[in-house]
Amino acid sequence: MSRNIQVSRLDRRAVEDQEVEIVERKGIGHPDSICDGLAESVSRALSQLYLDRVGKVLHYNTDETQLVAGRAAPAFGGGEVVEPIYVLIVGRATKEYEGRQLPVDSTALAAAREYLGEALPELEYGTDIVVDVRLGEGSGDLQDVFGEETQEVPMANDTSFGVGHAPLTETETIVRETERELNTTYYADHPELGPDVKVMGKREGDRIDITVAAAMVDAYIADLEEYDDAVGNVREFVTDLAESHTDRDINVDVNTADDYEEGSIYLTVTGTSAEQGDDGSVGRGNRANGLITPNRPMSMEATSGKNPVNHIGKIYNLLSTHVAETVTDEVDGIRDLQVRLLSQIGRPIDEPHVADAQIVTEDDVELSAIEDEVVAIVDDELADVTGVTRRVIDGDVSTF
Amino acid sequence: MSRNIQVSRLDRRAVEDQEVEIVERKGIGHPDSICDGLAESVSRALSQLYLDRVGKVLHYNTDETQLVAGRAAPAFGGGEVVEPIYVLIVGRATKEYEGRQLPVDSTALAAAREYLGEALPELEYGTDIVVDVRLGEGSGDLQDVFGEETQEVPMANDTSFGVGHAPLTETETIVRETERELNTTYYADHPELGPDVKVMGKREGDRIDITVAAAMVDAYIADLEEYDDAVGNVREFVTDLAESHTDRDINVDVNTADDYEEGSIYLTVTGTSAEQGDDGSVGRGNRANGLITPNRPMSMEATSGKNPVNHIGKIYNLLSTHVAETVTDEVDGIRDLQVRLLSQIGRPIDEPHVADAQIVTEDDVELSAIEDEVVAIVDDELADVTGVTRRVIDGDVSTF
Amino acid sequence: MSRNIQVSRLDRRAVEDQEVEIVERKGIGHPDSICDGLAESVSRALSQLYLDRVGKVLHYNTDETQLVAGRAAPAFGGGEVVEPIYVLIVGRATKEYEGRQLPVDSTALAAAREYLGEALPELEYGTDIVVDVRLGEGSGDLQDVFGEETQEVPMANDTSFGVGHAPLTETETIVRETERELNTTYYADHPELGPDVKVMGKREGDRIDITVAAAMVDAYIADLEEYDDAVGNVREFVTDLAESHTDRDINVDVNTADDYEEGSIYLTVTGTSAEQGDDGSVGRGNRANGLITPNRPMSMEATSGKNPVNHIGKIYNLLSTHVAETVTDEVDGIRDLQVRLLSQIGRPIDEPHVADAQIVTEDDVELSAIEDEVVAIVDDELADVTGVTRRVIDGDVSTF
Amino acid sequence: MSRNIQVSRLDRRAVEDQEVEIVERKGIGHPDSICDGLAESVSRALSQLYLDRVGKVLHYNTDETQLVAGRAAPAFGGGEVVEPIYVLIVGRATKEYEGRQLPVDSTALAAAREYLGEALPELEYGTDIVVDVRLGEGSGDLQDVFGEETQEVPMANDTSFGVGHAPLTETETIVRETERELNTTYYADHPELGPDVKVMGKREGDRIDITVAAAMVDAYIADLEEYDDAVGNVREFVTDLAESHTDRDINVDVNTADDYEEGSIYLTVTGTSAEQGDDGSVGRGNRANGLITPNRPMSMEATSGKNPVNHIGKIYNLLSTHVAETVTDEVDGIRDLQVRLLSQIGRPIDEPHVADAQIVTEDDVELSAIEDEVVAIVDDELADVTGVTRRVIDGDVSTF
Repeated sequence: MSRNIQVSRLDRRAVEDQEVEIVERKGIGHPDSICDGLAESVSRALSQLYLDRVGKVLHYNTDETQLVAGRAAPAFGGGEVVEPIYVLIVGRATKEYEGRQLPVDSTALAAAREYLGEALPELEYGTDIVVDVRLGEGSGDLQDVFGEETQEVPMANDTSFGVGHAPLTETETIVRETERELNTTYYADHPELGPDVKVMGKREGDRIDITVAAAMVDAYIADLEEYDDAVGNVREFVTDLAESHTDRDINVDVNTADDYEEGSIYLTVTGTSAEQGDDGSVGRGNRANGLITPNRPMSMEATSGKNPVNHIGKIYNLLSTHVAETVTDEVDGIRDLQVRLLSQIGRPIDEPHVADAQIVTEDDVELSAIEDEVVAIVDDELADVTGVTRRVIDGDVSTF
Repeated sequence: MSRNIQVSRLDRRAVEDQEVEIVERKGIGHPDSICDGLAESVSRALSQLYLDRVGKVLHYNTDETQLVAGRAAPAFGGGEVVEPIYVLIVGRATKEYEGRQLPVDSTALAAAREYLGEALPELEYGTDIVVDVRLGEGSGDLQDVFGEETQEVPMANDTSFGVGHAPLTETETIVRETERELNTTYYADHPELGPDVKVMGKREGDRIDITVAAAMVDAYIADLEEYDDAVGNVREFVTDLAESHTDRDINVDVNTADDYEEGSIYLTVTGTSAEQGDDGSVGRGNRANGLITPNRPMSMEATSGKNPVNHIGKIYNLLSTHVAETVTDEVDGIRDLQVRLLSQIGRPIDEPHVADAQIVTEDDVELSAIEDEVVAIVDDELADVTGVTRRVIDGDVSTF
Repeated sequence: MSRNIQVSRLDRRAVEDQEVEIVERKGIGHPDSICDGLAESVSRALSQLYLDRVGKVLHYNTDETQLVAGRAAPAFGGGEVVEPIYVLIVGRATKEYEGRQLPVDSTALAAAREYLGEALPELEYGTDIVVDVRLGEGSGDLQDVFGEETQEVPMANDTSFGVGHAPLTETETIVRETERELNTTYYADHPELGPDVKVMGKREGDRIDITVAAAMVDAYIADLEEYDDAVGNVREFVTDLAESHTDRDINVDVNTADDYEEGSIYLTVTGTSAEQGDDGSVGRGNRANGLITPNRPMSMEATSGKNPVNHIGKIYNLLSTHVAETVTDEVDGIRDLQVRLLSQIGRPIDEPHVADAQIVTEDDVELSAIEDEVVAIVDDELADVTGVTRRVIDGDVSTF
Repeated sequence: MSRNIQVSRLDRRAVEDQEVEIVERKGIGHPDSICDGLAESVSRALSQLYLDRVGKVLHYNTDETQLVAGRAAPAFGGGEVVEPIYVLIVGRATKEYEGRQLPVDSTALAAAREYLGEALPELEYGTDIVVDVRLGEGSGDLQDVFGEETQEVPMANDTSFGVGHAPLTETETIVRETERELNTTYYADHPELGPDVKVMGKREGDRIDITVAAAMVDAYIADLEEYDDAVGNVREFVTDLAESHTDRDINVDVNTADDYEEGSIYLTVTGTSAEQGDDGSVGRGNRANGLITPNRPMSMEATSGKNPVNHIGKIYNLLSTHVAETVTDEVDGIRDLQVRLLSQIGRPIDEPHVADAQIVTEDDVELSAIEDEVVAIVDDELADVTGVTRRVIDGDVSTF
């Protein structure tokens, strides 16, 4: 078997060298990310359920969660949710196998509750947020195709496309790390920061503007002064963080839409704008690498919630990102790498129609000098395609 | 002011003396009772919310909860819910008062969660049961009428009818006590008994048949033998209880639909048949006195969930029962008493169109000898009509 | 086989001779009746579907429809629905039979649409009213019992109770005919009258008060004067109708809650109060004979939507009414007749535990003189118990 | 006022000249496109409602429709839908303005019904598909910002990004035209073709593979032979169409997943896979120009359903596409043009932070020779930014 692996020069400048760059990340508490997170946690729980009960993952897809925003009345010192957020978990799942009923609905709800408890600790399950579920039976066709999975590597059942890239640019790194650090390190000492942190990075030449919209939690903020301090602390933290990743000029804005005189500030009860008017759904926010990067090719496929065993779009998006990262980790001299995987219907998914690594090398590096090394790594990673599935089920990979 | 109180001879035998008597009680875990209980607990919570926030009870009615049954896979030692029960709390509520938002949806859900936690401890909120809420704004008309409540006693806004009776017959007493004692005293030592206990009493002459359908909880029952013991224990307990209330012949049947050979037994995961195919709704089960008594006049009005301040049907059903009990407590010589209250639109509710006490006296008692006493008590109780409202809000009165 | 048929003297006065009588009928456009009508039309459609596809009626029950009121802005000359009415059809149905899928959900929705088109012609399906459906699979137990239906007459699967009476009193007749005639004869010439007509009759001695609440349809009413005419026309029509049924004094009130000065009138867009704040559900309104009669024993069982083949409560309520009517049609000298049927678990439903005809005869008639005739009729009707099922499926019997 | 318009050389080859190109279009009957179409038609209806009632477009967003697939039993000659498709229209809308109620829910449902009637004529509204609506009130913040709209050109309320390009490559043209022509010209003579036509184009060098998945409607197909003919006819039509747009090698595959021996074919009752297991939501499919083009930068923003007056992402995505098309229409010598618009919070939207036209010229054309012309056109189009809003409301622009 030979995999159709192509290495070529990327016919553009590295994104790092382009004049204008735009990058965005919706934090885990953003309504779209809540849906991504729910969809993926339900997916993991169903995979685990199937493995526990029947020894293999059966057909399902849970990539269609819809969130309908609630209404809230935030107030300094602690307000309240007035109308709960409503979430409908939508998808397909196998509910019966060899005469045995499988508790897919209850499992989905339990996974949702657990996920929300971790991701949005201020949100009380069942009163601040109502979660309902509509998991239908899958289409017969897909079940047929899926029945063939007794082979080691599943067959591609669709023409699908995945794309990944590495390394991250400075702006990408800053945007991603800003959200991550705010929601972990910073949050540990600042409970007033809600998880709905949206970060936009815009670079023009050597100036990077970072715009953060951060939902503050009212219970931890006594008055406008404390709110202003909270905003200032975020600005300071992000500025320090950004400067540790670049020598470019950094400008950080936090909650720019605030108008203190009008009394219009970003204060919430639960730490997410879903409590007041912002709806959400799966696959509308971050791509599989956690970012929205209009300077780069992106797949429209929703990765979260898809079946990690047989959904070729999910697997190829995660795998192409993984391949790109591995190559740039192991091979020197790469300034920008873009990996594309295109499936071939009816062939095992470790034999893509095209596996395409496009590279911008460092100025002093010839493509030919690293080509073989790149091909070898891509080949290895494709050979281990089922490793993606395993890591997804184990929860070791983030999908949004 | 004179209240139109009439006392007359009831033109039939006392129910206790009739040849055939039928009585039923659906236990607190029955799907219809779950809905009654939810509706009433939501009602109490809204009353309290309004009192806390605006100092008076605003317009609402929450008497339309619908329960859609789930699916379950019970098993000796512990099975699981496969598809959750779905509950939709329906009704009207005032969501805004003088520019201030009132969290009626969240309050309703919190009340539902708390009630279910107490009434159905084996049912996990949010996974075994999903509760959603649709509380709309009330109709303008009703809000108008309700606006007049600044007077002490509200005006009747509808022609409505309430009926109560006392004392309970032996059969009624046994049916009511059977469910209550099973779900309290007996349950304390027998966690295998679920709250979905349905009791039917049928008396023909001096023989009383008590039929109990009792949902057993699988986690506490290891095998068929233990199940059979559990059924036997209930039978024994109910037989003893019944015999303590009567000298008539007693026959008790428990879970008569069981068929051990077919493996068809009344085993549940959560202690309610709502987990597997039995839907429920408000006002379809027990009347305000906790019983279904086809031998007696009954009001069709759902009592649970109605606004206790201005819903004349709720108030009159509870009040007529209360009046009947008070009269028979305080006046000797009454074998059967039926109290009817009929409202008069546009008049204060303590001035009913008719307050009608119909009595079967003991053989040696003349109606005329007790008439004045009865009138006096009825008059007192009507004067304290707002006491019903208060007791309902405080949770001191059961409505189903 | 001998049926346990008992004839006895009813131990009370005929209702016609009692001092106070209360009767109510909720018209077909009342929110509770809408639910009853939907539940029963869905039931008929499912029966027919099963007969067409598999030659026999499979297990189902659709007696739990819930209606959530909408919001409307009526206006002289024609207003609009602002927020649609929401209806959830709830129940159990067999969705697969011998490997063949049965379109129960689509059939239920089609039946609902057709029924609403007839009963509420001003209500536009899909925009003024949204109908959704949740029909789960039935419980295993019931399916077992139902499997035995290959016998001619099904077995009773529950202890259940039905009660019927005849003839109607004058007040009952007037209340029933008022709603029926308003919604047919009168409506034919008066499109401004909506189907939500609620009629309450109250008789004290020889005076009958008829209170009608009639929803007027705004598109046919240009101004307050026309509204006042419309109300007056209803009053006149009902007065004439009532007087044709009795020599007692008649007083008719229509839309008594109106307050012209406050601009508070009973004007609607669609002819039902469900458009604005009045929720509804099955089994909360009229009993199987179309009336609510607190002077008489009533069954709490919802008749509408129940399976007419095997639901003993439905069958016995309809049958007892039918038996009572047949007896009073054929036997002279009966002033009041009450028929009760009580099922016996595990016996064919044409062999009730008790079939009990209680009679108040005319003054000059001895019970013994008609007893045999009554027994014979009851026996015949019981023998034809499956005729009830047939008439229900054919739509020849009203259930509310 | 000077708009910040930049023209530069695009730092990559024209997509037409790249080695591998992938293009996709989901037809109007695809579940995701159904959601896009519903969201946009609801949006147009609300805009029109607001214009009619209050003279200006109020705050709303309806970009979150969720479709839950149904179940169907297709059969040669005509099968049936077994379980209806369920659609939940989600979003925010202003329901009251200056004390006047606005029928946003009913308007949304009416628009949905009308749209579905046109786009999916085989799908019966209310039985094959149930549409429900949850439109909440918007967040206070957005309403504030929107209050400033009395100015001619609204202010940007968010940092948002739009991207458009022109001209289409051959592959893009073929993919777009294939779907459009199949669903119009071809459909006119071939009612067996359902609107759920998904087209994927893959070009490697000078070979273009077009893969079509076309849902066939069973009522018009008598047997497998007719089905095979139907597939063959589509293949032939698409091949002819494609060859009229290119001299490259064309290969067309239709319904490649079919397996005649297994009886697995793409037969449907209603012409969409939503009837059987394929869920859908807004913004997951085609971008604003009707295509998915991973070779080009794309915005993640859902365009359909967004408010066309003030949603900067929607306006900029449509406008950038419109600008690109206008420029390439009017200026010769452009091989590939990419227009990016980036908003500036708090500035009028006709003054973007960056308006950036990147160009690959024809070999014989200097960028400097056309630069001024391009700037002038971009400037004109930006000046007419409100024309986008107008065209969207009039339905003259497709958003997916």
